[in-house]
This record gives sequence, structure tokens and C-alpha cells, in this order.
Amino acid sequence: MTKESNAGRSNRRIVLVNRPRGEPTTDNFRLERAPVLEPDAGELVARTIYLSLDPYMRGRMSDSPLYAEPVGIGEVMVGGSVGQVIASRLDEFSPGDFVVGNGGWQDYATYQAGQVRRLEPDVAPISTALGVLGMPGLTAWGGLREIANPTAEETLVVAAASGAVGSVVGQIAKLRGCRVVGLASSADKRSYLTDELGFDAALDYRADDFARQLETACPKGIDIYWENVGGTVFDAVLPLLNMFARVPVCGLILWYKATEVPTLADPTPRLMRTILVKRLKLQGLIVFDFDALRSEFMAEMGEWVRAGAIRYREDVREGLERGPDALIGLLRGENFGKLLVQVSEDPTRSE
Amino acid sequence: MTKESNAGRSNRRIVLVNRPRGEPTTDNFRLERAPVLEPDAGELVARTIYLSLDPYMRGRMSDSPLYAEPVGIGEVMVGGSVGQVIASRLDEFSPGDFVVGNGGWQDYATYQAGQVRRLEPDVAPISTALGVLGMPGLTAWGGLREIANPTAEETLVVAAASGAVGSVVGQIAKLRGCRVVGLASSADKRSYLTDELGFDAALDYRADDFARQLETACPKGIDIYWENVGGTVFDAVLPLLNMFARVPVCGLILWYKATEVPTLADPTPRLMRTILVKRLKLQGLIVFDFDALRSEFMAEMGEWVRAGAIRYREDVREGLERGPDALIGLLRGENFGKLLVQVSEDPTRSE
Repeated sequence: MTKESNAGRSNRRIVLVNRPRGEPTTDNFRLERAPVLEPDAGELVARTIYLSLDPYMRGRMSDSPLYAEPVGIGEVMVGGSVGQVIASRLDEFSPGDFVVGNGGWQDYATYQAGQVRRLEPDVAPISTALGVLGMPGLTAWGGLREIANPTAEETLVVAAASGAVGSVVGQIAKLRGCRVVGLASSADKRSYLTDELGFDAALDYRADDFARQLETACPKGIDIYWENVGGTVFDAVLPLLNMFARVPVCGLILWYKATEVPTLADPTPRLMRTILVKRLKLQGLIVFDFDALRSEFMAEMGEWVRAGAIRYREDVREGLERGPDALIGLLRGENFGKLLVQVSEDPTRSE
Repeated sequence: MTKESNAGRSNRRIVLVNRPRGEPTTDNFRLERAPVLEPDAGELVARTIYLSLDPYMRGRMSDSPLYAEPVGIGEVMVGGSVGQVIASRLDEFSPGDFVVGNGGWQDYATYQAGQVRRLEPDVAPISTALGVLGMPGLTAWGGLREIANPTAEETLVVAAASGAVGSVVGQIAKLRGCRVVGLASSADKRSYLTDELGFDAALDYRADDFARQLETACPKGIDIYWENVGGTVFDAVLPLLNMFARVPVCGLILWYKATEVPTLADPTPRLMRTILVKRLKLQGLIVFDFDALRSEFMAEMGEWVRAGAIRYREDVREGLERGPDALIGLLRGENFGKLLVQVSEDPTRSE
């Protein structure tokens, strides 16, 4: 095994230095430099092109016992990434191949067999493997299929609706014949939802009269609430839920940020009574639950994306060093589209 | 139509005179006398033999908008009952037939076609149509089948475990190979669960160290929590729930009684986060949801009851006038077995 080929290169990586309380700050992260490793037998090394930033990362920064695998202090931040193989001791991969895996926040990632999937740049832009054809897309597609089961004429409400998961949830529901109401924090995002993605309505969940707006936008109540955010949105949704409504619980971005929970009259009796009387289904979901469905997902979603039936938007930030700021902005809803960090040049777009 | 046949008889009936705040009291009810009606065309009149008392009745006494059909002030209390036809203008029924329906808290009930089901006293004791082969049995069987789906080696916890629903939930789960932990408030009920019904453990949810006892009784965590009671039991269960645990929400007897909800740090974020991370499923159920499955239920459960694989216990109080006290006791957990009021003689037991 030769160590020469990477001589002179260094692997910049962003590690977690301490755990946030509430919103992360840039002080939680540190940029380090390390040597670029050569692959051992059964490994490959890939240069990171795109790093995906996603709300779940806030959870991994905590060591709450609820999270099975927090990022350790001093460890590289976790994250999905698309890269190009620079050295391989795996038979199935050669230098130049494009791959997607959980490479983390670094310039170069080492993978073992089974940890990466090959990408075909001719089939779809490689960045989509982190978005509409990747984890967020599978989350949306799988949660709708396995939990929400939308049918024509039903009303679906999705929060964080212009985001990577929410935009796919809403568009699939439209394809299924639902009335779709999206929640987003800025006027340009709301225009995008109604004008570009065909949502029936788009609301600002921060508006003072949000609860009333939501009721007006859902004249036949709510059959599916895709829970991406938690907090006061859920409070406004609960009384509008119809009998047999489904609530896939996919993310709680507002609560991830919360440092203190308010003191109030215990809402659990009201929640549980509503679950009982309306026969609601609340069910948590994580993308791993749908691993077995991936090929079916790729076939259906790939066709939708190629046909333009499902559209997507990317928000690409340049440079690994901007990861912390970009994640902080994501948790504030400041991104517009699937948030990616471009870590190095994308040769498939170099024309 | 003749009015003579019931001359001299009166129909005692118990009506709701005002709505309880918290626990019902006898002041919420009044015993009235009315004439016994003759059936109109398409009707029958049945003499009530057994009246079923069930926790849902507390909900119907409230006019919370959550409940679609509260009992009106001055109206007869709702309730399932088994009776014997005394007069019929329905071709399918003759005097002497045994029927089950929602006859309410009264000596005589008038039914229209489709509102009653005939009972065969040779197949099973007629009282079981209000218990193990009736609404509570179907609730348990349907909720396990449609929501909980217990599999061998899983752990199920059921509250109000010696009650009409809970005892069937636990016994079916045992037949499915589960470890079953029942909660009950008295030592004799707990002995019944372990010694007569074969539960693996029985705990007192009012014990100071209940949470610790529950953890000890569930060494592999909890896969199914059958929610019958709400309140602090749920708080103790939540941290023990395993990945992909199911929580059928069937009743909330402790919360029905509550007049005030405590003020505390909002538990919703913790609940929703647990739903998300553990991919829990909370789903409400009501027996009507399983109407389409009734014949399948009757076949399977009837066979289990005849074979002695599912056992049941009845707690029979004598006299319609004891209904209010009996219901108040039920909501306090004072009954032991399926609570029935014997309103008139059961001729099938007259030997």
C-alpha cells in the first residue's frame, strides 16, 4: 500500500467540540486538518463534492439518551455526502466513480464495502442523491406510503414545506389528488409552493392569526398532518384533524432548538383524548425504516423527477468551512430548497 | 295496535339530570317512571335483563365537543343491554327471543330493525354478549389485530387488566406468545391475573415505586402498551417503550375523572420526540371501527371461550336503581370483572 499519492493534500474536517444548548453556534464546531488516508484492503477513499445538511443533525449533536448514536466530542460531524472515488481497494469501485454515503463533514471520506452506493450521473444529477432521490425523498415517499396513505380529496398539511422533505411530501400528495397546504416562513417560499409546486395554499406559521388562516385553508379539516416542526403548529393543527387522521412524526425542528419548555396546563389529556375520540394515528418515522423499499422508491421517484412531475430546488453553499453557519441557518428556516455544501468541484457540471 | 298488554307495568328509567365535573355523583342521575310502550310497525320491545356498565359512559355524560353524541339532559342514559322480546312487530323476532342492543338504563327498550342482534342461549350465556363476546371483547380483539399486532416474545402491558377489555387483551396476548404484565389496584385482582388468567406479572399502579416495579417486570422493555387509563401510568410506560412499540389508545379512565389538569413543564416535546426517535405508533380505537370484523371475531373468540382458552369474570349488581353507584364504582376501579346490572330475571339461569 502506497502512502505517496495523497502527499501534500490534507483532509479538512469539521468536528464537534461541545454540545449546544438550544440553537447551535459556531463555537460548537472546529475545523481541523488531518492527513488524507489511503484505503486499506476492502476500503475506498472519496473526495467529497456535496455535503448534505439536514435537521436531524441537531439531534445528533445532543447526547440525549433518546439518540442512540450522538456524535462524540472531537469526532467529525455526521452527514450524507456525494463524492468521487480517488483510491479504491474494493473490486466494485474505481477511481472516478461517483458515490453517495455518510461521509461526514470532511474533504475526504473512507468507506468500507456496503457503506456506499454508486451513482450514475447520466440518470440524474449526482446532487439529487442527497435530496429528492436520496434520504429526504425516501423519507417523504416512505412515510406517505407506509403511514399516511393519502387518498384523493383528502387534505394534507405539511410544515417546512419548501424544504427537502416537505416539498416532496406535498408534491406526492398532489399527485395522489389531495388538497395540499404548505407552511413556510417567507413570502418567496410561499409563492414557490403555490406557483411552482402547485400547492393549494401556503401559510406563514408565524403569523399572529395562523390558527384562523389554517382553518380557512382547510375547509374540510385535515386528514394528514406531516409533522416536521413541532411547537405551536401542532397546537393549531390538532383541533382541525378529522376522524382517522394520520400524523407521521418526521421531525421536530422547533423543539430541537428549544432550551426551555414552557410551563402550562398539562396538554397530554387533551392530546390523548383527541387521539382516542378521533382515532388518530401518530407514528414516528425515520428514513432507515424504508431501506427495504429503496429500489421501488428509486423507480417511482426517478420516473417522476425525469418527467418533471416532482420538482426540486437546491440551496448550495460554497466551501466546507461554511457548514456550521449553513446548519444554523437551516434550523432557523433560512435555507430555500435542499441545503447542500459544495465541498469541491462537481465534474459532472464542469461544462 | 293494542295498548292493553302492558297495562299496569311501568318502565323505570334512569336519566341524566346534570353533567358531572370530574367524578360523577348520584346527583347526576334520576330514576323516573314512564309507561311501557307498545311497538310500532317495524319495532320490538324487550324487557331488559342485563345492563352493561362501561367506562365510555363517563364520556357520554360530558358535552365536550370531542364527543359527538353526549347524552342529553333529561334523556335516558345510554348503555348496551341484553333483553328478552315481549312484543314484536318485526318479522324476524318473536316474544321470548333474546336480543342484545343499546337499550339504555331502563326496564324496557324499544328497538327498530337493525338495532338489535339475536342471541342463542345455547351457544354462550346471554350475558357474555355484553362482555367477552360483546363490545369489550371486540374492542380487545380488534385493537390487538388492527393496531397492536402482538408477536411471540413481545412484552405487552395492559392497565385496568382485570376489567372487561383488559382481561381479554392480556389473555389474547398470552395466546400469541407474549409476556403479559397487567395493572390492577387490588391484591385479589392481581392474584386473579397471575393465578387464573396466566399473566406473567401483575402490578399495582398506585404503588409509590410503580415505575421501578414496571421496569423490573419488563426486563426487555415494552412493545405494546394498551392504554386504558391515562395519567401517571402512561408516564411510567413511556421511557420503557421499545423501538416500534404500539400504543392502542382505548380509554382514559383516570383523565375522565380529572377536574383539573396539573400545571407542569410541557411534556409534549418529550412525547413527540419519543414517538419520532422510537418510531412509536399511538392510535385511537373505538369498537365501532371493527364492526366489519364482527363475524370473524365471533368465530374466533367464541371458540376460545368455549374451549376455556379465554376466561371471563362477571361482577353482577342486582337492580336498575343501583346503576349510578355501580358506574361511579367502575370509574374508581371498584368492580372486579365485567360490570353488569341485573335489571330483571335471567330465564336462561332459572334452573
